[in-house]
Amino acid sequence: MSEAEDFLKVARAAREAATALAPLPRAPKDAALLAVADALEAATGEIVAANADDVERAREGGTSEAMIDRLRLDAGRVAKIAQAVRHVAGLPDPVGEVVRGSTLPNGLELRQVRVPLGVIGIVYEGRPNVTVDAAALCLKSGNAVLLRGSSSAYSSNTVLVRIMQEALAGTDVPADAVQLVPGRSRESVKHLMRARGLVDVLIPRGGASLINSIVEESTVPVIETGVGNCHVYVDADADIDTAITILVNAKAQRPSVCNAAETFLVHAGIADAFVPRALAALKDAGVTVHGDERTRAYSPDVVPVTEDDYRAEFLSLDIAAAVVDSLDEAVSHIRRYGSAHTDAIVTRSQQAARRFVATVDSAAVAVNASTRFTDGGEFGFGAEIGISTQKLHARGPMGLPELTSTKWIYTGDGHIRV
Amino acid sequence: MSEAEDFLKVARAAREAATALAPLPRAPKDAALLAVADALEAATGEIVAANADDVERAREGGTSEAMIDRLRLDAGRVAKIAQAVRHVAGLPDPVGEVVRGSTLPNGLELRQVRVPLGVIGIVYEGRPNVTVDAAALCLKSGNAVLLRGSSSAYSSNTVLVRIMQEALAGTDVPADAVQLVPGRSRESVKHLMRARGLVDVLIPRGGASLINSIVEESTVPVIETGVGNCHVYVDADADIDTAITILVNAKAQRPSVCNAAETFLVHAGIADAFVPRALAALKDAGVTVHGDERTRAYSPDVVPVTEDDYRAEFLSLDIAAAVVDSLDEAVSHIRRYGSAHTDAIVTRSQQAARRFVATVDSAAVAVNASTRFTDGGEFGFGAEIGISTQKLHARGPMGLPELTSTKWIYTGDGHIRV
Repeated sequence: MSEAEDFLKVARAAREAATALAPLPRAPKDAALLAVADALEAATGEIVAANADDVERAREGGTSEAMIDRLRLDAGRVAKIAQAVRHVAGLPDPVGEVVRGSTLPNGLELRQVRVPLGVIGIVYEGRPNVTVDAAALCLKSGNAVLLRGSSSAYSSNTVLVRIMQEALAGTDVPADAVQLVPGRSRESVKHLMRARGLVDVLIPRGGASLINSIVEESTVPVIETGVGNCHVYVDADADIDTAITILVNAKAQRPSVCNAAETFLVHAGIADAFVPRALAALKDAGVTVHGDERTRAYSPDVVPVTEDDYRAEFLSLDIAAAVVDSLDEAVSHIRRYGSAHTDAIVTRSQQAARRFVATVDSAAVAVNASTRFTDGGEFGFGAEIGISTQKLHARGPMGLPELTSTKWIYTGDGHIRV
Repeated sequence: MSEAEDFLKVARAAREAATALAPLPRAPKDAALLAVADALEAATGEIVAANADDVERAREGGTSEAMIDRLRLDAGRVAKIAQAVRHVAGLPDPVGEVVRGSTLPNGLELRQVRVPLGVIGIVYEGRPNVTVDAAALCLKSGNAVLLRGSSSAYSSNTVLVRIMQEALAGTDVPADAVQLVPGRSRESVKHLMRARGLVDVLIPRGGASLINSIVEESTVPVIETGVGNCHVYVDADADIDTAITILVNAKAQRPSVCNAAETFLVHAGIADAFVPRALAALKDAGVTVHGDERTRAYSPDVVPVTEDDYRAEFLSLDIAAAVVDSLDEAVSHIRRYGSAHTDAIVTRSQQAARRFVATVDSAAVAVNASTRFTDGGEFGFGAEIGISTQKLHARGPMGLPELTSTKWIYTGDGHIRV
């Protein structure tokens, strides 16, 4: 069979499985997740061996040690993956939740109820734990899943999916509800993007170029996730100690994640007091500042900023910086260069906070808090499939309810329209 | 300027207007809508004259009288359009609604708040009243709108949009928030479909072919609306009088709309008792039945059904029909041929109703009620922009809240992640 035929076979099996899975209540889904967790732990040796093949191939290909660390599984990491599946089993089931309901004037009983989306495609990069995390979240929310991980983790993912399928075979959840997209080629992503009617939604997790190419080419509806060019704006009325603490935390506490800050903007009225201390604190944290002329006036350590720097998701100990003449100029900068993920204001002014919150058009707006809090775990969702930076369907951290749609149900006793 | 440049100019103006409009509270938006309503009534003569040009051109082009009736405006219809705008002004504003909120364990105050989507593109057919209805709903929900009506109504729409813009110019809502997509060519729809970044969502209203071509080609996220291939399933346990009343209402009360029934399915166990009486009632209502062999056995009036009939949205006094051996077979038929709009079961069995509701994967499922109730007005939304048949963002009748996104806001006093 060709790769395209292989894909169709797998996608159709997932579709069938989704139909059987959708009406299942919570108990059999939780039982299936616990069976998956046990099976993964029992197969630790096999998983680690398959992963060793991926790691060896990556080493031979000259992959960086940082990337290899993301790829690598050992017994401890497999145990953590299994534990994460048990955690998902313990979360509330979003399916069946009555979102709205009323009795209409004519006596019809109307309910809007959460239902699974159906078949979810996930395209993601190196880390093989995502294979299991994403599958668990999709199953818990009653969805079948088509997983398309990085080709660098193909051996690991193949084994992980097979073990999950074998575990599901002994449960009420159809084994076909978890599928690996066959093939390592870039074409295999295309099959997924063009599978409108078989796949209900595609969630790409990864860098901007992956996400942009999927958005451009996909006929399956896409939920964009994760590109974070987050800003910290230090208002004229900011408390300087608070602003420095938030800025350093937002940039340096974990620079490789999407909710880390990539630019800071400072009101001219506080620049003399704030910028020299901020630059010193950032230097202590190992951060290189790429600043405009006005920022560079404060220190020779500041390197000249470029347009590309303002647009960049550095994911490193680099940050762009500019001095602005007003809050509105800061907001304009954020609208122009940002990715509408998370933007923060530090201010003691209630008026400034209100205006910033009202005019910044991003998934999350933080007031006197680090951008690092935009996270499903921090928000209390229990788990997160990604952070949506789009406006349709889901915006910001996506938990289990964001993996559902709704259905309207109305019940009468022979009601007709007149 | 080329049509493409004209489009970009208009789309950018809408984008700017959306930024200014988004933070406006309810009062200035309502005042602007009331000004629009007054201006439309005051310009009745001009509107009717422009519409007469469209009608004349349509007549010369050989357009059917039914289509011309949809196109035609007179003083009474203009008054109704203005009244509909005043009605929208009276509806609650979805913007600013707190959807969820909590205080996190660390003291951060977290709120998820409704915000406008931004710029909404609407592509629609003949009726010029949609130009004003859609604009009013978008403005009320804080969105700018790019209107692309049928080229047959271009003169009417040009005048309607100009009058709305002139009325807005005297209010706090930017006049550029309502825009007509320039040009009558099919290319002008393409500009709209490819305007990712300038347009936040595209809502096509119209036939299946328009909607499919937009879904296929658009890089702007689309909300599919309105194609309705609705089913009435008469279960073995149905009350026959109830089933006939519902079936005739669902098919014949208003055959030209998307929530009218296009197929009925009958359990074999009740066919002998139900089908002859149903066929007689449908015949009395002027309906032609396209049936399978088992249905045709009951009457020579039933014409042979085709695969295309099962897929068809007749929008006429025609209905497809089949006898099935089980509820599950009915559900399979609905999944295979339906459009996931609205499907109804008629039954006295609680068990059958539960299974039908759980396994039919449609925007709305009706139990012992006509499919005709799937409607924003009937559901108590006050107004409706369309009926979504997709699963992402909005499903079923779309009111004002469905024209919004959300934003997360979190407020602390120097909170950082540790």
